Amino acid sequence: MASDNDKITFVLVHGSWHDGSSWRFVEKHLHAAGHATLAPTLPGRGDSASMPITFQDCVDCVVDAVKAAGLSDIVLVGHSAGGSVVRKAAEMLADRIRRLVYISPLLAGNGEPVLAAVPPDYGALFKQMAEASPDNTVFPPWPVWRDGFIGDADEATAKAAFDELCPEPFGPIVEPIDLTTFETLQIPTSYINPTEDVVFPIGEWGFFPRMYHKVAPCRLVQIPGSHEVMYSNPEALAGALVVAGRD
Amino acid sequence: MASDNDKITFVLVHGSWHDGSSWRFVEKHLHAAGHATLAPTLPGRGDSASMPITFQDCVDCVVDAVKAAGLSDIVLVGHSAGGSVVRKAAEMLADRIRRLVYISPLLAGNGEPVLAAVPPDYGALFKQMAEASPDNTVFPPWPVWRDGFIGDADEATAKAAFDELCPEPFGPIVEPIDLTTFETLQIPTSYINPTEDVVFPIGEWGFFPRMYHKVAPCRLVQIPGSHEVMYSNPEALAGALVVAGRD
Amino acid sequence: MASDNDKITFVLVHGSWHDGSSWRFVEKHLHAAGHATLAPTLPGRGDSASMPITFQDCVDCVVDAVKAAGLSDIVLVGHSAGGSVVRKAAEMLADRIRRLVYISPLLAGNGEPVLAAVPPDYGALFKQMAEASPDNTVFPPWPVWRDGFIGDADEATAKAAFDELCPEPFGPIVEPIDLTTFETLQIPTSYINPTEDVVFPIGEWGFFPRMYHKVAPCRLVQIPGSHEVMYSNPEALAGALVVAGRD
Repeated sequence: MASDNDKITFVLVHGSWHDGSSWRFVEKHLHAAGHATLAPTLPGRGDSASMPITFQDCVDCVVDAVKAAGLSDIVLVGHSAGGSVVRKAAEMLADRIRRLVYISPLLAGNGEPVLAAVPPDYGALFKQMAEASPDNTVFPPWPVWRDGFIGDADEATAKAAFDELCPEPFGPIVEPIDLTTFETLQIPTSYINPTEDVVFPIGEWGFFPRMYHKVAPCRLVQIPGSHEVMYSNPEALAGALVVAGRD
Repeated sequence: MASDNDKITFVLVHGSWHDGSSWRFVEKHLHAAGHATLAPTLPGRGDSASMPITFQDCVDCVVDAVKAAGLSDIVLVGHSAGGSVVRKAAEMLADRIRRLVYISPLLAGNGEPVLAAVPPDYGALFKQMAEASPDNTVFPPWPVWRDGFIGDADEATAKAAFDELCPEPFGPIVEPIDLTTFETLQIPTSYINPTEDVVFPIGEWGFFPRMYHKVAPCRLVQIPGSHEVMYSNPEALAGALVVAGRD
Repeated sequence: MASDNDKITFVLVHGSWHDGSSWRFVEKHLHAAGHATLAPTLPGRGDSASMPITFQDCVDCVVDAVKAAGLSDIVLVGHSAGGSVVRKAAEMLADRIRRLVYISPLLAGNGEPVLAAVPPDYGALFKQMAEASPDNTVFPPWPVWRDGFIGDADEATAKAAFDELCPEPFGPIVEPIDLTTFETLQIPTSYINPTEDVVFPIGEWGFFPRMYHKVAPCRLVQIPGSHEVMYSNPEALAGALVVAGRD
């Protein structure tokens, strides 16, 4: 039984290849527990799929969505590359943010592009993919998706999630990001590690603890699950978001 | 409710000191879920305990068992040193294999013996044990077994499992293994990590992620449990095998 | 159903800022399962808060409590800095100890003070805190406690536990500890790792596996939870203590 004080407003920022609807299973569980959510779709997919976009466009999308909805005291959540978006958005939303929550985030250093957070061999592969694509986008091959992104789901769930993916614009991923202002902010922070996230093989270049070290010390929440735990185990992720997001 | 398409045929290859019967508790759970199993006993134990055997004898045993049973579309599972056996067997069974699944495998590089995958100080100890034995075998002392191999089980389970162990012929462990052909195969692969496997202390020389790096990128499945999780928590291992083995 | 042989007598030694009452939730679960407990309060807090104390005073407290209670065949448990206390106490209690159990222990090498086990930057901070205090004590700031020590608990539990903390005398933490005798002892050992313990960020200087390597090879038990799992999930810790403590 959550008291009113325990009701959290989550702003959920998706990662590459997804749109805001990727959170819908998680949102169902959050709503059932009395929490509110906002899950904007970043530009460059859906209706705006063919438009050239910048990293700042993505950031603006989140900032505008939060302001348009008149939200404050939010828990701002970033998944994967969305983790970089929420950091930059936090510069303009600082007084509305109660806590930042990262889920296997892709975080580069101040002045670096998101791509700098990708292991070098994977980064080279992404570049080749983008160059070989007609529209400077990248997209995961099915076998990589199946075992690397969502190995914990059954095949039907993995396929259904795969069918929802959209090509990811490569441009925003290679833009340097200025985090000078962000680094002056002191926002309580939590990190959610799905323990079977092997998008990058666990070890020197794995998400955890490499990315966690970029935000530690902070609260750590771990759950069983793959990088795509919003599809494979949305109930567990919703629970983890509450544990990560509460005061 | 598994559809026919979800029914898996597992071929389970045991590790050192065990025989095929070490899988019986896991098999019970797999059968109850509608899956089929084959769990051959490698040579050098039981009736063939006193015979000199080679690594290739072990490989042939698996290959012959699969062919004799007329199995195809199998999930080939190797535990511990059995992981090296299934890799070599895969060279001759490639067209019958749907997926390889490793459980805390002992995997050496191409041209190396299994012993090369053992931490140097443990390897030296094994050599001393084999030399001190009357028949060039190795066997784990009870305290090492109790806390290092099966620390998650209650004492009665640990003792019962210990009483089933047979001396392990050292010969096959020190034979160089040619994996040239194996390395050309592209077989979908999963890795099961029982998170309390401390046969080799977790860290630089632990099973995980050291052995996982030898097969990554691949699907990762983690379960609570020791190296001997087929005795300490066979139901969890059966569940993990299905998650690891399905398409 | 535990047989008489499965009934364990736990001696529970608390860490910094706590007293013996920090174990009361865990003790409730252990008692319900038929186990016995003794949870002494180390000197330097409560009635003895203002007295100058030494590391040996803490050790003597444990030794005296065990002897005064006439206990033998005990499982001696040390949490955090209490891990160093139980090692030294074991020198005088060896014939009464069935097994040592560490929970995220702070263990220094022979001849080193407890502080040597603390990451250098945290150690420097502790020194500054002690020097800035009126009575050479250290105390964790609330934000550090909330996210670093007990991030898995709800806020009410975190606050209630925080309100129980007492300033920790810094003197015993910087005294060199002679472990020459301890290192000759061969006592079966278990290590409990609460997997979300981020008092020191996971990685090079985290508790696990850094501290585990100081006692491995040994039995490893892992449970979800923070450093303060005796408050956040006492039932799980009680269960882990039984798994860790049994023969």
